[in-house]
Amino acid sequence: MKGEIISVGTELLLGQIINTNAKYLSEKLALLGIDVYFHTNVGDNEDRLKQCLKIAYERSELIITTGGLGPTVDDITKETIASFLNLPLVENKEAKQEIINFFERIGQKPTENNFKQAFFPEGSRILPNRNGTAPGFILEKSGKIFVVLPGPPSELIPMFEEHVYPYLKNFTKETIKSRVLKIFGIGESKVEEMVKPLLQGSNPTVAPLVGDGYVTLRITAKGLEGNVNTMIKEVESKIREILGEYIYAVDDEDMEEVVVKLLQMKGLSLATAESCTGGLLAKKITDVPGASKVFGFGVVTYSNVAKEKILGVDKKTLESYGAVSPETAKEMAEKVRSLANADLGLSTTGIAGPSGGTPEKPVGLVYVGFATPQKTYIKKLMLSGDRDRIRTRAMLHALDMVRRYLEGKQID
Amino acid sequence: MKGEIISVGTELLLGQIINTNAKYLSEKLALLGIDVYFHTNVGDNEDRLKQCLKIAYERSELIITTGGLGPTVDDITKETIASFLNLPLVENKEAKQEIINFFERIGQKPTENNFKQAFFPEGSRILPNRNGTAPGFILEKSGKIFVVLPGPPSELIPMFEEHVYPYLKNFTKETIKSRVLKIFGIGESKVEEMVKPLLQGSNPTVAPLVGDGYVTLRITAKGLEGNVNTMIKEVESKIREILGEYIYAVDDEDMEEVVVKLLQMKGLSLATAESCTGGLLAKKITDVPGASKVFGFGVVTYSNVAKEKILGVDKKTLESYGAVSPETAKEMAEKVRSLANADLGLSTTGIAGPSGGTPEKPVGLVYVGFATPQKTYIKKLMLSGDRDRIRTRAMLHALDMVRRYLEGKQID
Repeated sequence: MKGEIISVGTELLLGQIINTNAKYLSEKLALLGIDVYFHTNVGDNEDRLKQCLKIAYERSELIITTGGLGPTVDDITKETIASFLNLPLVENKEAKQEIINFFERIGQKPTENNFKQAFFPEGSRILPNRNGTAPGFILEKSGKIFVVLPGPPSELIPMFEEHVYPYLKNFTKETIKSRVLKIFGIGESKVEEMVKPLLQGSNPTVAPLVGDGYVTLRITAKGLEGNVNTMIKEVESKIREILGEYIYAVDDEDMEEVVVKLLQMKGLSLATAESCTGGLLAKKITDVPGASKVFGFGVVTYSNVAKEKILGVDKKTLESYGAVSPETAKEMAEKVRSLANADLGLSTTGIAGPSGGTPEKPVGLVYVGFATPQKTYIKKLMLSGDRDRIRTRAMLHALDMVRRYLEGKQID
Repeated sequence: MKGEIISVGTELLLGQIINTNAKYLSEKLALLGIDVYFHTNVGDNEDRLKQCLKIAYERSELIITTGGLGPTVDDITKETIASFLNLPLVENKEAKQEIINFFERIGQKPTENNFKQAFFPEGSRILPNRNGTAPGFILEKSGKIFVVLPGPPSELIPMFEEHVYPYLKNFTKETIKSRVLKIFGIGESKVEEMVKPLLQGSNPTVAPLVGDGYVTLRITAKGLEGNVNTMIKEVESKIREILGEYIYAVDDEDMEEVVVKLLQMKGLSLATAESCTGGLLAKKITDVPGASKVFGFGVVTYSNVAKEKILGVDKKTLESYGAVSPETAKEMAEKVRSLANADLGLSTTGIAGPSGGTPEKPVGLVYVGFATPQKTYIKKLMLSGDRDRIRTRAMLHALDMVRRYLEGKQID
């Protein structure tokens, strides 16, 4: 079944609110195996809404609208659909009684406008609204299905789950399922080149996407409930054969969650000494609930004085090689490891910009130090982008070194 | 001018990501006085994208597309627009060089796919991409304007601000201007009550909005270039009379920028000792370019051992009052101030949750300590929300104490 979503509301077009309904509905429809090919946002304007309905009617079997069901003169979705389909609006007794009850409950009197909400295009199946006064409805006509829902997510979501989902379930046997593999350490085009043959598949599909500093591959399978998981697993293991250690997480998991979980599993502790990331590394680690079990101490030694006096980096190292150097990164990681009495020490030092760069040490040059009981690893990075991007990537590279170490993978 | 936005990406139709670009662009276009009548989301599919382009071409003068400019075979926006307009794709030398430079900078080799990004429909004006490899472009044809932008917001936003906004500005005479006042320390309904008469105005309008931990009032005036600033100023001074010291910043300025700027102006330095905020405070301060002039050192003493051994908090204090106590907050602020030899010391200690709360010390209880040469201030907070929200609010409260101190306002 081909479906599309039309969201009605001038506030969407003015950028005053964001369309979370389209995302929510699309996710649900995907699970039902319904192909959603278009989303449209249109204002509370009869002509333009009719234009959209006409376009949708010609290309889709299922048309879901959201918004424009309220009691004010602005709200015209229902009237426009009725007029578009040449159907009269007829009063629904139960809906009218519901409105009377609702206002009794909140101790107010309904206005004439409110009773507008008891009228529906002839032949509609009414969807009660538990959380507001605007009922929705489903209308089948000439092989097309209209599902008309209110705009506020707090009203739309329960209505969809209680009434629309079970209704649509009857039309589909298949389901769609996705799994996301998160990849760090190689670029999107490189990833694509490596898994190229897999990108041609039509079911499951494999699609690359760039995140903030990482790349994802999304595997999506369509089929019977019992089959989709196996279909996904087969493709996943092929991808894992190719990309192996570059895959650091699946689905919603973040790098910091993976690292904290691994530290907990191994019973190891980590301490951080940050210069250019300025606390971001510690912040990310402590974003994870329960991080206190593996992380007790971090320092932000932004100045050279702090690196020397508080962390104990050798003055000679700072003088001979500078703060942004492999030597300083190494000492920072080792010193914080011993200061905190931790199993592992992690450090960053670099030039996040926008100023402070020189020809020898340009903006984007970052050294990560990683001290372990066996040896200290140093990684040199040349990062691009603005300050925020450079700091974020430096943080990800640092955490990825810890992940690789804990997973027994190659670090440098 | 009538405009519309077409966002390209199958991930939008699957509900995997939300379309923040359409919201962002709509807001900006509204400021330029451009009427946006439609948003469309469509997948990475040539036929369906062409359908959307055809519909848009017939009803709008300005068509902005987002997404589908990447190096992979999925990315077809540019190719589809060229084919729709019957224009050949021609190579742009500067863009090619940019790609070569980009990969040189990051020390990797471009693949054949990457060079696809140096081709543009004939007659395009190329928009450089500071934060990625996909340039955008503007194309004028038969009285229609196409603005073609990359999908990732971190690439789209700077490109729009630097190149597209100034370009579109030429087409409009009346201007809409906004000024945002940021308010911290009182809730939205209280703010609304206090400035109620001002909310009735139609030009300028004043609109309240809730941010993450703060409240904003947006003043928007419409008129000729020369008049709007005066119109805004008049309303602003009325609001300032009412809300005074609660207003901490204007427009895009953040709390941390205000604090760093004030520290720089006064020539004072700050050191941080964090427990529950876990590095967020230091991270926020060092988000501001040039923070190194006023911030040299911070610690994240997540464990009691670190508080005691490294920061020097008295063992007795920790034992008698616990880590989450006004006494510990006070010592943390004072100790980090002297350890760093800084003018000011700022500390946080609290329970960010989700677990770790007790009836006496529930999740959301946070103490902020602020040590100055004159005295040490302690603030007790009872914050609601999830871990992230509690940490963010604790950070804002801490920085707001510094702001108030530096501005000579009342602190507690």
